Amino acid sequence: MRLALLVAALALATSANATETRIPDRALEQAAQLRERALADDTGWKVTESLTTEVGPRMAGSEADARAVAWAVAKFKELGFDRVWTEAVTFPKWERRSESAAVLGPHAQPLTVTALGGSPAGTVEAEVVRFADLAALEAAPEGSLAGKIAFVDFHMPAARDGAGYRQGSAIRSKGPSAAIRKGAAGFLMRSAGTDSHRVPHTGITRFDEGLTPVPSAALSVPDAGQLARLVALGPVKVRLAIDAGWDGTYTSHNVIGEITGRSRPKEVVLIGGHLDSWDLGTGAIDDAAGVGIGMAAAKLIAQMPKRPARTIRVVAFANEEQGLYGGRAYAAAHAAEVGQHQLVAESDFGAGRIYAFNTSAPEYARAATQQIAQMLAPLGIEYMQDKGGPESDVEPIATRGAAWGWLAHDGSDYFDLHHTADDTLDKIDPAALAQNVAAYAVFAYMAAEAEGDFGSKAKPEAAGAAH
Amino acid sequence: MRLALLVAALALATSANATETRIPDRALEQAAQLRERALADDTGWKVTESLTTEVGPRMAGSEADARAVAWAVAKFKELGFDRVWTEAVTFPKWERRSESAAVLGPHAQPLTVTALGGSPAGTVEAEVVRFADLAALEAAPEGSLAGKIAFVDFHMPAARDGAGYRQGSAIRSKGPSAAIRKGAAGFLMRSAGTDSHRVPHTGITRFDEGLTPVPSAALSVPDAGQLARLVALGPVKVRLAIDAGWDGTYTSHNVIGEITGRSRPKEVVLIGGHLDSWDLGTGAIDDAAGVGIGMAAAKLIAQMPKRPARTIRVVAFANEEQGLYGGRAYAAAHAAEVGQHQLVAESDFGAGRIYAFNTSAPEYARAATQQIAQMLAPLGIEYMQDKGGPESDVEPIATRGAAWGWLAHDGSDYFDLHHTADDTLDKIDPAALAQNVAAYAVFAYMAAEAEGDFGSKAKPEAAGAAH
Repeated sequence: MRLALLVAALALATSANATETRIPDRALEQAAQLRERALADDTGWKVTESLTTEVGPRMAGSEADARAVAWAVAKFKELGFDRVWTEAVTFPKWERRSESAAVLGPHAQPLTVTALGGSPAGTVEAEVVRFADLAALEAAPEGSLAGKIAFVDFHMPAARDGAGYRQGSAIRSKGPSAAIRKGAAGFLMRSAGTDSHRVPHTGITRFDEGLTPVPSAALSVPDAGQLARLVALGPVKVRLAIDAGWDGTYTSHNVIGEITGRSRPKEVVLIGGHLDSWDLGTGAIDDAAGVGIGMAAAKLIAQMPKRPARTIRVVAFANEEQGLYGGRAYAAAHAAEVGQHQLVAESDFGAGRIYAFNTSAPEYARAATQQIAQMLAPLGIEYMQDKGGPESDVEPIATRGAAWGWLAHDGSDYFDLHHTADDTLDKIDPAALAQNVAAYAVFAYMAAEAEGDFGSKAKPEAAGAAH
Repeated sequence: MRLALLVAALALATSANATETRIPDRALEQAAQLRERALADDTGWKVTESLTTEVGPRMAGSEADARAVAWAVAKFKELGFDRVWTEAVTFPKWERRSESAAVLGPHAQPLTVTALGGSPAGTVEAEVVRFADLAALEAAPEGSLAGKIAFVDFHMPAARDGAGYRQGSAIRSKGPSAAIRKGAAGFLMRSAGTDSHRVPHTGITRFDEGLTPVPSAALSVPDAGQLARLVALGPVKVRLAIDAGWDGTYTSHNVIGEITGRSRPKEVVLIGGHLDSWDLGTGAIDDAAGVGIGMAAAKLIAQMPKRPARTIRVVAFANEEQGLYGGRAYAAAHAAEVGQHQLVAESDFGAGRIYAFNTSAPEYARAATQQIAQMLAPLGIEYMQDKGGPESDVEPIATRGAAWGWLAHDGSDYFDLHHTADDTLDKIDPAALAQNVAAYAVFAYMAAEAEGDFGSKAKPEAAGAAH
């Protein structure tokens, strides 16, 4: 009886194991070695340095967009990826030609601004009306801004998880349309940023259908403070002059490199970053770092004694900044393979140390998620069950049913730099970047070695969804 | 006999006192109260805010120069000074119209630059030759830079006393001429700054006589790093385009306000700052703070129960930035009154906490200097005998024989901001500024109450010296 009970218990355990996703012990040993090797490796830094230096700023649709694509193809090959290819991504092209602003009259002085992506060209000379936040602008009486410049002066707080950006980016995306509905002839906002430098933060805006777009720009944080002080002294007239606009379409490319899996090559773990940047800086934290992390993590995996069971796919996405064009094109092109994407994760929140991890895996893959979390713990990474989500360009395929991984960078200073001229290589700490690479390498390798899946399954209703 | 001895001893003491400068006890009590009142007062902040906000950038010779002069006259009057007047200061006028730079070729990208003050107009497209410092440039073979752009890439270290600026500013002042002597067609330097932002540091340069000036500019610190990385990869061609230049002369004014002494009104203690700024920022730390400190200190003294024995003179100097024009004009105009200037001190090193104090007073006024030092000690200020010197605009009159006071600001972050667009009000800590005002108020009041002088005496050989 005792033996029979033991046999029954073993059978039960085996049965549970048969449906539970787990990472084999031999892979755990390899993952631990990989982690330590990654911490001592500078590939992530070198790739990030190469992209930001040799290509520099690379706004979607600009001359440098094509150079960035060529750079990514060459870099994947140089790093020894097994397969490298590109997939076309077409989008409307926006150009920034010039931008300036100045206070007119007795306190005449220049103001440092940058046009919001999507702003039309135009010059407005008008009185400024200040609002503390978007709600205040939306509460203004109809027509009360006729011919005036709306100025939303929201002070964005810094936070490790970047929480303040929700409100800051909402002002950028919805503020111009709200201002136009009140009659405004121009829109200014305090940058959605947490720094104190004369480097305004750009970013895409959208104008609601049926509205006539007006010149829209962000003031640097110190300039917003200056304008607020001037407005407090009495009526202030500002001249805002923008030359920018949409000009046809452009076809760029997602650039993809693979380390081909040894036994289940059609099953892929997807990591990466976006290749485009805004034009003001060299896009180091946004998002050369993400590209560097993905390329370096996969390269380190490729240097292991044997390929992982599954394929590691690194994607350098096109045009994230103006509306996830690369991520949406990827999801559409690979709609039939959603279930083959085991886990998808993009690094698009800078290069601060990663402090949290989670996946969307269901209960039967919880143990594997915990195994990954245990391997990440020595890197100072906490398993935050029920937190996180798919970052940027992997959101479209996650929406179609792919399981996501979440590796959260400390973003305390991310919005000091985000979308500004100050987003340059010198802002990245090489040691933190190596920690990032170690985390992604461990994550990708373990997911690629897992026996069993993480719950990806194409959602029928989403498979044919439009962009 | 014993009584006779005592009388003799008293006579000796009286005789010693008669030649030793001292501050009477009643003034010490008043000074202590003044110090505490100043720490709780925001006049310095309000004046600094007013100048930087209402006038904004105010480069010598610009439209805003005249507005700054009018502002200073009005502010002195508003603050209740007993006498307010202006003295003309004439200088050559330099204008900045536009400036840009870009890497050309396969790594094409813009570079953030600012023309050095005094740069001529011109566009150069040429290969860049990098030098680690001025000595390396000076050691280059004759003719070796023919048609090229010299790039001096010196990394300026931060220091409390700003020591790194000696080398940084020497590159700015001597680098262009050194480059021209080697045949260079353009000059670029890493900004003489200690920050990591895309805000280049301007400042005046001079071209040696007999040389044909070439376009000369400073790269922001991140841009210098970028250019250095690109140069390390191979030959780099840069286009430097500057529209700027000298255009006739301009007459501005030193603006002077006095709190008239109650008993020795012709004897003056001079404090102040310079009214002009560079055009890129609003000149908060350089040097609205100096003007604010001087005005506030004197106003606090004017609020005391009675006027000090001597006059407190606050000078807002014209055009310090382009060559101490205001300071030199003041010294020339007041050459006959050098001996009446008891102590002269300018605050022109930002608004960091003052940490050190000294005067040039001779041995017979050492006790009074020590009395002032004791009154400053609770502010965290150390008496540093044999350190310091006359700051900026008071150097010309000190050269003519006026005794100087030295109140040293902590300049650890001064060169993060100096001569950049980032020199704005938000960079000033109101509590540190109040400490500055307290220090200057104590210094000026005690010097104005001292019985005996601090050693000022016109130097015959300097009295008629040319500028």
